[in-house]
Amino acid sequence: MFVVKVGGSEGIDYDSFLADLIQHDDYLVVHGGSHELNNTATKLGKPPVFVTSVSGFTSRFTDRETLDIFNMIYAGKMNKMLVEKLQGLKVNAVGLTGIDGRLMEGKRKQALKIIENGKKKVLRGDLSGIIENVNTDLLRLLMDNAYVPVLTPPAISYEGQAINVDGDRCAARVAVSMKADTLIILSNVPGLLRDAEDEASIITKLSIDEIDSHIESYAKGRMKKKLLAAREALEGGVKRVILGDARGKAPVSLSFQKWGTIIE
Amino acid sequence: MFVVKVGGSEGIDYDSFLADLIQHDDYLVVHGGSHELNNTATKLGKPPVFVTSVSGFTSRFTDRETLDIFNMIYAGKMNKMLVEKLQGLKVNAVGLTGIDGRLMEGKRKQALKIIENGKKKVLRGDLSGIIENVNTDLLRLLMDNAYVPVLTPPAISYEGQAINVDGDRCAARVAVSMKADTLIILSNVPGLLRDAEDEASIITKLSIDEIDSHIESYAKGRMKKKLLAAREALEGGVKRVILGDARGKAPVSLSFQKWGTIIE
Repeated sequence: MFVVKVGGSEGIDYDSFLADLIQHDDYLVVHGGSHELNNTATKLGKPPVFVTSVSGFTSRFTDRETLDIFNMIYAGKMNKMLVEKLQGLKVNAVGLTGIDGRLMEGKRKQALKIIENGKKKVLRGDLSGIIENVNTDLLRLLMDNAYVPVLTPPAISYEGQAINVDGDRCAARVAVSMKADTLIILSNVPGLLRDAEDEASIITKLSIDEIDSHIESYAKGRMKKKLLAAREALEGGVKRVILGDARGKAPVSLSFQKWGTIIE
Repeated sequence: MFVVKVGGSEGIDYDSFLADLIQHDDYLVVHGGSHELNNTATKLGKPPVFVTSVSGFTSRFTDRETLDIFNMIYAGKMNKMLVEKLQGLKVNAVGLTGIDGRLMEGKRKQALKIIENGKKKVLRGDLSGIIENVNTDLLRLLMDNAYVPVLTPPAISYEGQAINVDGDRCAARVAVSMKADTLIILSNVPGLLRDAEDEASIITKLSIDEIDSHIESYAKGRMKKKLLAAREALEGGVKRVILGDARGKAPVSLSFQKWGTIIE
């Protein structure tokens, strides 16, 4: 089986993605919603706040109000949009967050260590964390009964609190737990680029040993986390991770034909 | 088993409701979200529009944009709020809409026949309908594996399109399909009142034969649909419907002690 993560960035063509996806068998979908979340949060008077960790990774600061809007967009608008479209294509999809059935469980971060204006700072009140367990029993129960799970953050802490988790790393954790062969991570770029401004500068192949140096040298913004997710997937036993482009007409099929950045 | 529908009106105390609910066994939750939906839709520049049918029932006009915001509030904010709170109380809840797994399937209305300024009018573009089938296999699959389903509109049309459905009638249909003994419908009033302005004027007992005359004589606004839902539940084999008050500390236990309006 394979896991496909479809991002929530601008420019993603969900209809083409789904029409292509359903030509394949035995898959599970994880999705994002960042672009819609930023738009709606801003309209609701709660614009997004991003922080940069001391190790150089960017993440959304998620207080309770942000988490409510996060649920509105990820669990509400985006998840049900994808499930409805799949149902319209005769695929019996079931949309779930990590809270439902404790599907994706993990540790809440106690505090964020961030860099702000060049200075280190400790930030509290952030509801985010890292997934450590996936309820594979629930996923198998659904898949054995011919349902297609469509999964989205948030996850749930051991204390039973919703926590924001990175969507790509969430997909990696699900792929590892479900013993998937392949993880496809689709976004609105062709893959990992040597030069973020030049789509022709795509790096088509990468080994697991090269990931760290490429996080340092080439990856910008959200691409850093995609590489981190790729490393976590491969270390956990997934055979290949493909970073592909969801702006085209057949992103899943093209990923299987090794378009994009293949990490093995 | 029993089905409890908790409304989405102002003043409902969800923490008390859930703390009381989990003292009971073998239940399934259906919820609303109208108050939050009205607030958020208005903030997003898309205030709610209500129409009155020729038969005198009020409903929300649901175009595509409204349905997206509906999903944000019902499937996103409200459903995940309830599931998170239940998880915090060690109940393994799973939140689903009627779209997920075609859980609640029905016919989309072709057109709404409404009364506007005293004149009859036909309104098109409304995405709403009536549930005719419940996927009891999926509900049993979850309940047999110790999950507690937390259900919310929208439902899905036979063509695979999301449709808004009334939450009380949705709960009635689920109760009938699951062969529940009891349906409890909780809102922010004590039950059916003779005088909507006087909470002491509660009608404590009603037979199925009296429902139609009471819809005419006493029920106002949303209460009309609750009585309609009650009739549908009883006609479908549910033994009793209790209209109870979700503003108190033990609304489920009190309903079982026959506080509220008991319809048999």
